[in-house]
Order: sequence, then structure tokens, then C-alpha cells
Amino acid sequence: MRPFLAHPFDHDKLHEECGVFGVIGVVDAASFVALGLHALQHRGQEAGGIVTYADGPGFCSERRFGYVRDNFTKADVMATLPGSIGIGHVRYSTAGSKGATAIRDVQPFFGEFSMGGSAIAHNGNITNALALRKELVERGSIFQSSSDSECIIHLMARSMGRTIPDRMEEALRKVEGAFSIVAMTRTKLMGVRDALGVRPLVLGKLGDGWALASETCALDIIGAEFVREIEPGEMVVISSDKGVESHFPFRRLKPRGCIFEHVYFSRPDSILGGRSVYETRRQIGVELAREAPVDADLVCPVPDSGTPAAIGYSQESGIPYAMGIIRNQYMGRTFIEPTEQIRNMGVRLKLNVNRALIKGKRVILVDDSVVRGTTSRKIKDMILDAGAAEVHFRIASPPTAWPCFYGVDTPERGKLLAANMTEEEMREWIGVDSLKFVSLDGLYRAAGEPKGRNTKQPQYCDACFSGEYPVAPSDMIEKGFEMKAAE
Amino acid sequence: MRPFLAHPFDHDKLHEECGVFGVIGVVDAASFVALGLHALQHRGQEAGGIVTYADGPGFCSERRFGYVRDNFTKADVMATLPGSIGIGHVRYSTAGSKGATAIRDVQPFFGEFSMGGSAIAHNGNITNALALRKELVERGSIFQSSSDSECIIHLMARSMGRTIPDRMEEALRKVEGAFSIVAMTRTKLMGVRDALGVRPLVLGKLGDGWALASETCALDIIGAEFVREIEPGEMVVISSDKGVESHFPFRRLKPRGCIFEHVYFSRPDSILGGRSVYETRRQIGVELAREAPVDADLVCPVPDSGTPAAIGYSQESGIPYAMGIIRNQYMGRTFIEPTEQIRNMGVRLKLNVNRALIKGKRVILVDDSVVRGTTSRKIKDMILDAGAAEVHFRIASPPTAWPCFYGVDTPERGKLLAANMTEEEMREWIGVDSLKFVSLDGLYRAAGEPKGRNTKQPQYCDACFSGEYPVAPSDMIEKGFEMKAAE
Amino acid sequence: MRPFLAHPFDHDKLHEECGVFGVIGVVDAASFVALGLHALQHRGQEAGGIVTYADGPGFCSERRFGYVRDNFTKADVMATLPGSIGIGHVRYSTAGSKGATAIRDVQPFFGEFSMGGSAIAHNGNITNALALRKELVERGSIFQSSSDSECIIHLMARSMGRTIPDRMEEALRKVEGAFSIVAMTRTKLMGVRDALGVRPLVLGKLGDGWALASETCALDIIGAEFVREIEPGEMVVISSDKGVESHFPFRRLKPRGCIFEHVYFSRPDSILGGRSVYETRRQIGVELAREAPVDADLVCPVPDSGTPAAIGYSQESGIPYAMGIIRNQYMGRTFIEPTEQIRNMGVRLKLNVNRALIKGKRVILVDDSVVRGTTSRKIKDMILDAGAAEVHFRIASPPTAWPCFYGVDTPERGKLLAANMTEEEMREWIGVDSLKFVSLDGLYRAAGEPKGRNTKQPQYCDACFSGEYPVAPSDMIEKGFEMKAAE
Amino acid sequence: MRPFLAHPFDHDKLHEECGVFGVIGVVDAASFVALGLHALQHRGQEAGGIVTYADGPGFCSERRFGYVRDNFTKADVMATLPGSIGIGHVRYSTAGSKGATAIRDVQPFFGEFSMGGSAIAHNGNITNALALRKELVERGSIFQSSSDSECIIHLMARSMGRTIPDRMEEALRKVEGAFSIVAMTRTKLMGVRDALGVRPLVLGKLGDGWALASETCALDIIGAEFVREIEPGEMVVISSDKGVESHFPFRRLKPRGCIFEHVYFSRPDSILGGRSVYETRRQIGVELAREAPVDADLVCPVPDSGTPAAIGYSQESGIPYAMGIIRNQYMGRTFIEPTEQIRNMGVRLKLNVNRALIKGKRVILVDDSVVRGTTSRKIKDMILDAGAAEVHFRIASPPTAWPCFYGVDTPERGKLLAANMTEEEMREWIGVDSLKFVSLDGLYRAAGEPKGRNTKQPQYCDACFSGEYPVAPSDMIEKGFEMKAAE
Repeated sequence: MRPFLAHPFDHDKLHEECGVFGVIGVVDAASFVALGLHALQHRGQEAGGIVTYADGPGFCSERRFGYVRDNFTKADVMATLPGSIGIGHVRYSTAGSKGATAIRDVQPFFGEFSMGGSAIAHNGNITNALALRKELVERGSIFQSSSDSECIIHLMARSMGRTIPDRMEEALRKVEGAFSIVAMTRTKLMGVRDALGVRPLVLGKLGDGWALASETCALDIIGAEFVREIEPGEMVVISSDKGVESHFPFRRLKPRGCIFEHVYFSRPDSILGGRSVYETRRQIGVELAREAPVDADLVCPVPDSGTPAAIGYSQESGIPYAMGIIRNQYMGRTFIEPTEQIRNMGVRLKLNVNRALIKGKRVILVDDSVVRGTTSRKIKDMILDAGAAEVHFRIASPPTAWPCFYGVDTPERGKLLAANMTEEEMREWIGVDSLKFVSLDGLYRAAGEPKGRNTKQPQYCDACFSGEYPVAPSDMIEKGFEMKAAE
Repeated sequence: MRPFLAHPFDHDKLHEECGVFGVIGVVDAASFVALGLHALQHRGQEAGGIVTYADGPGFCSERRFGYVRDNFTKADVMATLPGSIGIGHVRYSTAGSKGATAIRDVQPFFGEFSMGGSAIAHNGNITNALALRKELVERGSIFQSSSDSECIIHLMARSMGRTIPDRMEEALRKVEGAFSIVAMTRTKLMGVRDALGVRPLVLGKLGDGWALASETCALDIIGAEFVREIEPGEMVVISSDKGVESHFPFRRLKPRGCIFEHVYFSRPDSILGGRSVYETRRQIGVELAREAPVDADLVCPVPDSGTPAAIGYSQESGIPYAMGIIRNQYMGRTFIEPTEQIRNMGVRLKLNVNRALIKGKRVILVDDSVVRGTTSRKIKDMILDAGAAEVHFRIASPPTAWPCFYGVDTPERGKLLAANMTEEEMREWIGVDSLKFVSLDGLYRAAGEPKGRNTKQPQYCDACFSGEYPVAPSDMIEKGFEMKAAE
Repeated sequence: MRPFLAHPFDHDKLHEECGVFGVIGVVDAASFVALGLHALQHRGQEAGGIVTYADGPGFCSERRFGYVRDNFTKADVMATLPGSIGIGHVRYSTAGSKGATAIRDVQPFFGEFSMGGSAIAHNGNITNALALRKELVERGSIFQSSSDSECIIHLMARSMGRTIPDRMEEALRKVEGAFSIVAMTRTKLMGVRDALGVRPLVLGKLGDGWALASETCALDIIGAEFVREIEPGEMVVISSDKGVESHFPFRRLKPRGCIFEHVYFSRPDSILGGRSVYETRRQIGVELAREAPVDADLVCPVPDSGTPAAIGYSQESGIPYAMGIIRNQYMGRTFIEPTEQIRNMGVRLKLNVNRALIKGKRVILVDDSVVRGTTSRKIKDMILDAGAAEVHFRIASPPTAWPCFYGVDTPERGKLLAANMTEEEMREWIGVDSLKFVSLDGLYRAAGEPKGRNTKQPQYCDACFSGEYPVAPSDMIEKGFEMKAAE
Repeated sequence: MRPFLAHPFDHDKLHEECGVFGVIGVVDAASFVALGLHALQHRGQEAGGIVTYADGPGFCSERRFGYVRDNFTKADVMATLPGSIGIGHVRYSTAGSKGATAIRDVQPFFGEFSMGGSAIAHNGNITNALALRKELVERGSIFQSSSDSECIIHLMARSMGRTIPDRMEEALRKVEGAFSIVAMTRTKLMGVRDALGVRPLVLGKLGDGWALASETCALDIIGAEFVREIEPGEMVVISSDKGVESHFPFRRLKPRGCIFEHVYFSRPDSILGGRSVYETRRQIGVELAREAPVDADLVCPVPDSGTPAAIGYSQESGIPYAMGIIRNQYMGRTFIEPTEQIRNMGVRLKLNVNRALIKGKRVILVDDSVVRGTTSRKIKDMILDAGAAEVHFRIASPPTAWPCFYGVDTPERGKLLAANMTEEEMREWIGVDSLKFVSLDGLYRAAGEPKGRNTKQPQYCDACFSGEYPVAPSDMIEKGFEMKAAE
């Protein structure tokens, strides 16, 4: 069923985590965009799109469901994307709502204005999209998608600005929330980050050309040199003749990048805020070992995201690191369940316990986070089935108790385990011998803040842990979301 | 290559002949729409789309390249189109420009307005679309397609009308050219025909429900009763509670339906303007036999469109009717030409001469029309290769010397054989013993006008033959098209 | 469900009518084979296959479900079929048993022998296949398909013959029934027809190369010259150096070609037994008009196969010929039936009555044959719904009362209308004003036998009408089939 | 290009490593087979097949290119595979020869014998297949594939054995080489291992049913209990009524399982020869640290296969373990290389260096093996580009100097780096500061032989390292392969 959707907030899963990439001044831009998106695939697996421009055919676009490697490696697809400038987007698959996404929800979005066309790719979430959309529809704009990001292109279409960068500035001043945007015209590549800098965006140099990407790992894959991060509140306009022009069109704010990028979203080989993501995660494991030691035989990661923290925990505690759970690298679609049902079949398709290793051992399992807690229970079952003597969970983030409204797909608050239980209740519900989360201060220390969190003016956005939202989510409040009472 | 196209007139082939269908008040509307579109497939083979509405999922849409029978017979596709109201559209394949059509050019078009959504399907061509589009873009509308028809939905979006039918009226008053439109809201089916009634549109009754269709053959397939034609300049709004409401929002004009619908477009089993299309065509053959007799052994149709006129010619002349050319009923895609090339291979894939029959005979070939003339030459070659003694072409329409701007895909004037040659030059170029076209008066007589054409106020639009355009094609004039000088 | 099938006779539908084609001595043989098969598509629509040979890659094969035009027009498919020699096969779709056919049942079949590979394509049916297969399996042959034709290649594999043509001869001497075979080795094209010559096979010349085809229309499409028919009982071996070598390895019999090829199977533009198939069919109409005249207003064919006989009937009777039933040229898959069911929907998808023409008229409908009779009833319903005053059926073949065992897919005897009813009972069951079949003698006269059928030694195989089987169907008798008692 | 192949040895890549699975006595056997094959996907990624048997449809088969998760998770595919008994096979993708594999090469293979059908799935390689095939073809067997495994089913077809298990025994006695086979009849599941037990095969219990699998990880995924390994030279016949019947039809030999299964092929969570594969690999790292210590800052695995040995090396040496190279978990098809080429693009698609971690460090890289050495060079380049101070390679297997003829796809000897260079030459060619392989004795110790390799009677097949082949590869010797001279 692919109904026309009037409003983006009708879905159960409101927002999407995404990856963006753009390049200018290279031969065959689309190939570079495809590589960049491939390196960013972990930020969005449902769909991807690329727009390029070349004299003659004009703006060219391909938007597809599925992995970059399956769509943008085909010669016939790539042949439709000529030109030396291009941008791309990968989009997250929101579990359960797959059917409701139409190809028209897949970015980049394109608009033809009187002075020419423009395409944009957006990572983040616009918190006043509902109000903006209502007003735009009343004035005669026709929306093609259910995406909040489409508001931006309509605001640009209605702007009186004489250039496309002017129109983008004007549009973004009306927008609230989090955005890291890569956009293009026929001759210019643009990058913008909201004033808080919630989502990442980096600049790279590639011969005479330039690249913009959500993470540095996407610069590495194309062999580009990492120049610097786009700063919070900065807008860059890059052209072949003038190079990188920078300005700061928005009101300046104290930056508050998303701390969850360090915990889980970004790839471990990316550099974020001047720090190795891998090293931050390993250091979280060190903090966890200090804050929550336990006597055990083995430290095992829940693959693959718990691995760096497990290494850190092992190194700090001296307890041997081991692969107690093996991931099936061919996991994919859902198999048909045999009539005689298999216990925890969903988890078995992805993970298997290293039985000979685990049997009779006291095992520390290190995972990156606990959301609903259901997966943790199933993993515990598998480990106990294999004969473990004790199971201790150590979590490389504080309890996730609040939804994110800045571009991360989180369940509603009632479904977050930590929103409804104490740590001890969670331990009992999951059914393990002990369960410990790293503290918020421990996390900040691991992320390079030796004094921990500055409670007056936190250095990061940590709303998912603290409930302190740096931008009021106005659409959600309209719909009845209750923010945490001021303390 | 699927570029974004700013303007619909950039293509070599400007316009499309299409078929439209709509139904209200039936269980499983989409199945009826699919059947109706299947019966109208001859009006558009490239692509088709269906939109339905049902409470719950809301407006649902499927637009696909290819035949109705291949897309809208699949259970999974049809399951996405619930509801008791729906409309559909089939679109013509313009040879050579296939690659440039994107799925977003496929109708019905949909727009979400503040009072709800609306979908429209358009047969015809808007002659001031270029000017309308320019103005709409300047005011901030974002076009999704290269289709002239999209102007209508944007004009509706910007209308101040309080209901969707009001908005449609207001939009269509700004539109010039030819249109037969089927449209829908959540609860209403709408049908409109321009004041000249260039393209056909008929109303049918099906139990408690109603249907609108380009031709009566689409009513036959669903077992609906043919009620009447929608009149030129009429707009009907059909709802389950109020039935059919009719009004005439446009300035009244003397109707001038397209005469080529009788010659070629409509199916022979349709009833058009109160007449059997088959009978009109047979009668053209009778007129031809009277106007252009010749001594010969056989009268053979060029299959399949020349068949009724060939029957009429045979009956009037007394020369036996025969199947001298056999059509391959499996014709389709282009085969790879063997290295050692086959003469006239393209034609051989579709037609074969009945050699044993033709050999040594004087053959009259009856065809519906001559456009570029290249096919006529190839057919003549095949007939002569098979040993025919003489070949006489008789054409069931006058010379096609002018392009159509009202919804028919015609080559530019320079490529129309009759725009550049006299009848005798054409005969020589094609290489046949004689070539005769039915006269314009003969055609009018066959179409039910016993006195022939009223030159002061022609009863039909016959611009393709006469060069007399009932509506000035303003966009084309802007682009340099020269109309026939007044006489 | 695609089960492994041990025996070909387990299906409801026993046999298949097929088309075969082969070519040698041309550049890019596969392109010619594809064209030839396209011209023979009416002989088999379910699937097709092509095998070629080229030094280097060796024997190459592609077998596919679907039309030739959809599979063998693709550059990537054709690129896999290099070489200057090739054969091909199209296979009939047996209604209802579609699911049970696997791609491994699609011909040509291939076998690698110690002296090299051979591929064969078979049109006809082997009447002792069941016994042959049983013996071969017991001796260790592994069958890959459920096809009777596969016996031939296994018999060849086990032959002691020193050359492949020798092995084919030896194999075919063990085979009973009807066969027209096109086969190939690396360097030789072979053609064989059984001693009765039941199925057709013709030889054509194309430059320095040669072609073999089921019908002459397949020579026409490639521009080959029709040389002669392969004679009943003849085997030709064609090579580039020695040209066409002919011999007659089987016991000579009086030929008895299938008369139904003239009535229905062959294309009207083919030449069969020195006669135009179209002309024979027109002449059947003439005979019918003489044998079964009736006073009426119109003679209408049931499209498309009844057309030539309807023309003949009209010419002989003087009653005007008219297109009273129009065929939808886009017919195809089955549509989903709307919940509120449409009467005779299956027929409506394919045919529509020309209502304005038929209303109030006495109509003669000419059809090629009556098998189960169900279609005839539905057509009668449509004609009466449209207001016809009288309906008279005239059938261009005698009553079909016996199944064919020589390569034609016929229902079992109990389902043949004429096996169970008299002509008057059939008329009443179908519900028409009159029903008449051409006589067996009339059919023979139309087919060029002025004295009609030689009852002592019939000139054709007409078992489907007469029950006189020229070859005893031994497998079927084993399974309980009762032949007509000798008179 | 998919040519018919007469002989399996014409390919550049001779053999395939595969995985087999079978189950009996469960509801919906195919679902279990699909899960089992999914767990064995690492043993073969090119294609997979499943055969089941159910009364009514009989034997049912689906063979497909691609991953198990993409084919055998579809409801329509699985619905074609009913029954409570089934077997399956996954097949390795031999790089470069993809095009030459046809679907008919995909197992299980099926044969219909006079007493019923049988399907077999084979892991291993038959070393006298060429000779067997030649003899079978001369006697009239028609091969359908280019696979050596097909000989077995033809030998069974020609056997005089009265039961299918008898025929399998007789067939396998004629076969030389390595085989672990899972096979089935309508009512029996069979498992066989050659007398040396080169390839693994294990037995599991699942409720009242039984399973056979290449590895224990495939038992884990379906929740089956691991009962025991099938012994070298054992044949088990399992039926619902009689359970597991075992016998030893072949001459008893001293077992010599493949040691490379421990090094690389088997999954780390499988139990092989009573030992955890993971633990053996970790222990190899320990041995390496003892045999080839080096002063360095980090021990990094080459992901993912080097991970257990890297953990062992780190633990033994005390040098910290770190993720210096990050694998892209979405790696897949080949991307189009941008015109301005990216150095080492192929490797970049799969791996990225953790630059912030590696910079300035002395790095030990642990990999499982070196075959051609080209990948090692590229990884070294990446590490140095990222600023490593020193690079030391440690390899968890001895130098691979000889091809395998028992079911492993290895390049010809001339392309094996270790067949042509000394360790020092390899170090220089790869360009690293040091390169060390574990010793053969070290490997044996890690694999549970405390005294190392018994040179007189080695406990494992290690021909790829030692050149000592336990079964003479007769076909290959015929084709000119020179075995190592006796010492």
C-alpha cells in the first residue's frame, strides 16, 4: 500500500537518520557520489538517490530503494548521471513502516525555479515542518512526498531571493530543528549546518575539486583529503572558479553536536570533532570498567557495535576479550519460519553463540545501547542456552529515556525501556546477573571532556539521555508531547 | 537518460493522444478502471496509471510503464488500490522519445489541497501551457513533470475556490486548447470537455454506479450501459448521494469534434457522435470507390486499420475483397538485425504478403492515412516483390498536411509528406500505379454530413487536413509556427 | 509447483503443437533463427529456445518462457548465441498445465556424445514414448524433462552409429508417431519428416546458406527463397561444403499430411502442399455457403481465424461481409474480476460486439472449429445481448470428435462436444438458430481434392474428424484409449 | 556466454568448496534446509538449491543463483518445496568464471531410476571424474552439467543395485577423491563421507527428526542438538521408521581431515573434530606470538578472518589488540571506477584504515593466509598511507604452496606466491618490515596435536602446505600436474 500522505507525522516512526554527500570539479561526479554514499550506507539502508548536472541533458536524477552497491554500480544507471557536479543521499529504513515509503520520499529533492534548478539532500529533522507545510499548502504549493525536508525546497521556490544560495538562506531561516544539508545548482555545491551543529558535515579536497560528506570515512573511500568540519551555523558555497566561500547566515549559538554520533551512528574509522570515533568508544569501555567492574572470565562484544567498548573494558579490567557471539555476515531478509517454531529465530539468523567457548564461563557482554530491551533478552537466552555460568551486561551509553527529534528514528517514549523502568527493574526484566550503563559524565569524559558534562551548558546534545532538548520540538508539542519539567 | 525537464515543448514529439476512464459507486473500483483502460489501450500504449480513494489508506496511486494487461492484472498491484471510486489514464508512446519520459510524467496527477486531495487525468493538449507554466514557476510552484497537463493541478492549488469542483472550473477557464478530463476527490467523480468538444468523453451507468470513458467500447467491457456523451463545454460532478450534476461553465461555442477520431483513433466498435465508427469507415471506402475507381482484381486492406474502408470499397466497386497482407499478431520489440541485412526488415516483422494470392494480380491497397509515407513505400515494395501486376493505393482520409495541436502526436510540418508534395508527386515518390485520397467532402459525407463540409463553419475540427485551427496554438506561434494565411 | 515428472503422460494435456526452424551458412545465425521463430510464434507461445555452435565457446543455448520477441530481441541474450549455424523451437502453452512445465522441458534438447554434441528440435508426438522411456531408464539413462521428444536424444546417445546423422537415423527407426525434426551438429544442419509427413517442414535458400522451417512464412520473414517441402520420410543433411544431401531411411508410405494445418494451424500466408493456406480457407467458406446456405443480413467472422472462410461464404452467398465482432489487440493476462461480476468477462477481454452494426440483424458467424463449444456459447450471448435478430453458426471444419495423438493438444474425448452430441444437440446447447459444419468431402475439395475424400486411402490425416488413425497410438492404447471399431 | 561444457576441467578454476545440508522427519523441511544453508553460506556464495519430496507433487526442486537469504525466503519459492524431507547445497563463486556457470551446474542433482528418484548434494572433488565421464559418455549417458559431481548420479543410474542406497554405495566405490555427500530418496536421508574424511559432515537431532550438515553452526541455527560427526568412511541411511542406520562400505583408512577447515573455511562458532574452531584459531595466534615475536604498539586483525588469531597474538604478546582496519559491512558489487582513478579502489570498497589510531604506530597485522599476495600489498599501502611507522605481517597458516584437489578452489601453482618465493622474497615483494608464517608444527599444535605433525603419518590433509597428497589426483596427473618428488 503506497497511499498519498498529507503529513509526514502520520507515521509511527517519525524521523530518519540519513547520510549526505556532494562533489564538484571532478570528472564523472556520480561515481564519486556513489562511492561516498556507499561509505555512508550505515546511516541509511532503505533507499538512496543521486542528482547530477551536465550541459545538454541538464539535471539528471536516479532514486532507488535498496543499497548503493546494488543500484549505483550498474553501468546503465550510472550512464544516466553525467556531469562534474553531483549530490546524493541515503535514507534509513524505519522498521515496520517500509511499505508506506514511496520512491517520491527518497532524496535528493529537486525544484525548477525561474533562475534554474536546485537539488537538496537533508540529514536531520525539521521540528516545525507540520506548521510550515500547512501554510505552504494553503498558499498553493503541491507536496510530492511525506518528508519534512520537502518544505525547504518549497520555501526556496517562493523566496524572492535573486540567487539560489540567497533563497536557501532565506528558506533555512524559517526552519527550526537540525539540519546538515548538501545542495547544488548547475554550477555550485552548497553545504549548510544548523547553528547547533547537531548533525555532522565535513569538507574534503580532491585534486582541483571539493567534496562534502556526513563523515570523514566517505572522504577516505574516494581518496580525498579531510580539510575541516563545516562549522555549526556555517554555509559554504563552492564553485570551480571561486572555490569555497563561507558565511554564517544564522544567529550564532553555542554548538551542541549529537553525542550519539560518537556512541553509535558514526563509523569507528571516522574522525568527529577532532577525535577518533573508535578511540572514544574504546574509552567508554575503559570508563565502564572503572564505573562498573565485575569478576568474570570473558569480555564479549555484542557484534559489531559493542566491539570497541568491549576491547576497552577488557584492557582496563584485564579480563580476556573473546568473540563469544559470532555474527552471520549474510544476514538479510526474513526467512519463513518452520511450522515447528524455532525459539528466538530472528536472532539466530544474525547471531550464533560460540558454544564451546562460552560453556561454564562468567561472561560480560558489552553492547552500545538498550532501546526496547527485547534484543538484549534474546541474546541473554542464547548465552544461557549455551551454558554460560553468569551473564553481565555492560552498556556503552546511559539509559535511553527520551525520543530524539533531530533526525534519529526512535520509538515513542512509552516503548523506551529506560523511560519506564529503573536500572534494577531493567536488569530483572532482561534477566541477567548484572546490568550497568556508563554514566553521562563517564560518556562525556570518554568523548574528550575531562571534567564531564557541564550541566549548565552541556557541550553536546544528549536529549535522548537527559530529556533536555536544545530546540523545542514545536510540532510534537502541538501534537501533545510533554517535555521534561524544568528542574 | 531521464533528465529533469523544465518545459514540455523541448521534445521532438510535443503531444500525446491519451485515454481516460473513471468510475464511482462500485465495489473494487480499480478493477473496473483497469478493464476500462484495457479497452482504451489503443489510445496510449506507453504507460498507465490508476488512482483510487478509500477511507483509511486515503488516496492510493500506481503509475507504470507498459500495458494495462501487464501491470494492472497483478494481485499485489491491485491490492494497493482499494476503494469504490477511481480514475485512470493511458498514455501514448511517442516513438523515439521513450527515454525522455519519466514515471513522473505518467498521469493521473495528484495534488493535496487544504480541503483535501484531487487527482486528474487529461486527454488533449493545452495550447498555452508554456505561458502558464512560466508564470506558475515564477510564483513558486514546483513542477514535477514535463507534461502540459500538470498546469491544471497547480492552477487548482492556487485557486481561491472553496470546493475542488470550483477550483477545477477556475483553473480550466485559464486554459486554452483541447481537453477531456476525468477527475476525482474523495467523494466525487468529475468529467469535463472543452467548449469545442475536440476529444470524446462518454457517460455510462453501471448498477448504482457511474462511469466516464473516452469511448463507448470501455463501457461495453465492464457491462455498463451507454447513457450519453458528455457535451462540449459541459462539466459533470457525480456523487453517490446526488448522482450526476451538470453545468456549463465555459463560453458556449459551436462544437467541432476531431474528425480523425472517426478515421483512425477511436475503436471501430465505439459509437461516436451517435454513429458507429466502423460504419463511418466502411462508408469512407464507399466514397473512395465512387471518387477514385480503378480496374483491378483484388481490394486488400493494409491491416488492421484499413479493413473497414477496404470492405466498403469492395462492396461499392464489386472487386473482391481479400487478405493480401497478413499481420503478425505477435509483433513487438525490435529484433537484432542479422549482419547480412534483410530488406525492409521492420515491416516484415509486422506484415507478410500472401504471396500465392497476390502473384500476377492488380491490387488495390486501402490504408487509413499517409503521414510520412515511408511505410507506404515499404508495403509497395513487399507487394511488388511478391509479383503483383499493379498496385493502387486508396487512402481513407484526405492528405495530412498540418500538425495537430489538440492532443495528437504528429511530426512537424516539414516531415508530413502531403505538406511538401502534390498527390502526383506523392504517387511517384511512393512508386505506385495510382494513389488517391478521399476528398474532405467525401469524408464529411461518410461521417454523416450529407452535404459535405460547411466551409463557413465546419462541423468538425479538421485542421490536420485543412490547416484551419479552431483555437490558435499560442505557445507554438510564440515558438515560430506559421498558421495558414487566411483566404 | 514444478515437480520432477517421471512420465510425460501424467498431464491432462498430452501433447504440444510446436514450430521448428534451423539455418546454416549465414553470419549471425541466431538472429535468423529468432526471426524465423517469431514468424512461427502462432505454433507455440509458451516458450522458445535457440542453440547455436561457434568454435571457441562451442554449443550455446538459451531457453526461455515467453514470446520470441520478448526474449530473443535482447542484445545480451543474443550475444550469448554466436555462430553461423543454429536451430530453434517454439512450444505451445497448454492451458491449465502451465505451472507444471519447467524450463528443462523447453527444446532444443542437447546431448554430448563421444564424437561431439548434437541438438534437436521436434514438432510432433512420439506415440510409443512411454515404452521407450521405461526401457531407457531401466538401462541407466537419466531423463531431464517430461517431454516425449527427449527419448530421441537418449536413443542417439546409446546408438552405435559412427556419425551423428547415422545415430539420428537409428534412433528414429525406433520411434513411432509424427515428427518433423530440425537438428544440428557442429557443422551440419539436419531435417527429417516421418514417413506419413504429418507435420510440415520446408527448405529455403538464403544466399549461400540454407534454412529449414515448419512453414514458408518463416522463410519470407528472413527473405529466403522457398525451395521445396522436405518430403514425407526424407532426411536431409546440409553442410556448407556438400550442400543438401537427401535420403529416405524409413519404409515408404503413402503420405497423409495433417488436414488441420490447412484449417487452423498454419498461417494463412504460408504455402502448404503447393496451395495457399488462405485460399484453401476461403474455399472452405465457399463450400460452406453451398452446403449450408441461410437467408441473413451479414456474414461475420469470429476473429481472427474465421476471417478467410467468412470472406468465401460472403462471396459465394452474396450476403455482405462485415466486422460484427472486434478483437482487442492488446488481450493478454487475466484481469482481476470485480467483485460484482461481469457476465462473460473472459470473452469481453478479447472480443467486443460492434453493437451499432449488429442490432436487429440476422447474422451468420463463421468460425474455424468447435472443440468444447463453451466459447461459441459466450459469443452467441454477446451477439444476442447486442440485439441481433438471428444467429447462425457456420463452422469451417467437420465436427472434431476424436483426439489427436500426433502433436496437437486436444482435450480428452469426453470433453469434445462433437464426441457426445449430434449436430442438432450441439445447436441447441450452443443456443443458436442454426449450426452447420462443412462436410469432410467439402473440406477435401477445398484442400484441392476435387473428388473429395478417398475413403479407401484418405489423402490426409483426418483422425480428429474421422477417428481413423494412420498410426496406432500404442502408449494411449496401453493406457486404455479405445479406437474406433473398424467398419 | 553459457556454452555447453563437455568436461569440467576446461575451466580455469577447477573445483568448488561447498556446503551441504539435509533434514528428515520435520514439518516443512524446506524451511529448515533454507536456514541450514544460510548458516553455511560462507562455504558457497554463488548459487544454492533445495530438493524436497512430498506425496502428490513428488520431487520438487529449486536451484538459483545468489544468496540463500534472497531466494529461499520468498513465499512463492518456498511454496514450491513441500514435504518433510529435503536436502540442499550452496556453491562457491569462483572469481572470474562466473559467466561460465549455468544453472544446470547448481546442485542438488536429480535422477529418476526405475525404483524411484534420488537427489544428491556433494561437497568435495572427484579426482578421477574426467576418466569416469569419458567412459559414461561412451556408453550413452548424457551429462547435463560441467560438474564432476554429476558422475555419481550417472553411476547410480547404471548400477544394478536393487535399492538406491545400494546404488550409491556401488557408485561411490568407483569414485576417487574427497566427498561429503547428503542425498535423499522419497523416504530416506543419506549421508556419506569418504574414507579419509577430508570434508566435514555432522549429524544433529531435531525433535523426532534428524539433520545432516557440513558444520555444527547449521545445527545451531535450527535449534538442533549436535549428536556426532559422521565418521570418515561412514554411510548413514536415515528413515522415519528405522532411525539412523550406519555402515562402512569403503576400505578403512587413517583419517586425514582438511586442516584448512580449521584455518579458514569453517565458521569460528562451529565445532570440528571435537574442538572449537575459534579456539584453534586463537591458539594459532598464540603460537605465532611465540614463534615470531616483534616489538610493536598494536596488534590488528585483517578483518574478519584474522580476528581470532590476532586476539591470541595480543594475549600472548601483551601488545594491545586494536581495530586498525574497519570493514565496510555493505561491500558487494564492483563500483564503476571514476575516470580519475582511485588508488587501490577495490580494497577501499571493503576496508578502511582507522587513520587516527594507526598514525605513527608500529602495527602487527594478523591475516589467515597469503595466496597470491596482491591483497596483502594493497593493505600494506593503505596502512602506510595512514602514517603507520612500521608494518609487520603475521600469517595464521604456513605458506600455501600447492593447489588443493579435494574441493577447494585454488589458483594454479604458478600463481601461488609461496610456490615461487622464499619468505624473505615474499616480505620484500609485499613491502613490509617483517613477514612471518606459523610453522606447520605450530599449526598442528594449535589444532590439538601437542607433539605437532606426525611426518610419517600426518594427522591431517595438509597438501596445500606440504605438497603431500593423500590421494593421487589422477585426472590432473593425466593433464600434466607434477607431484612433489618423494624425499
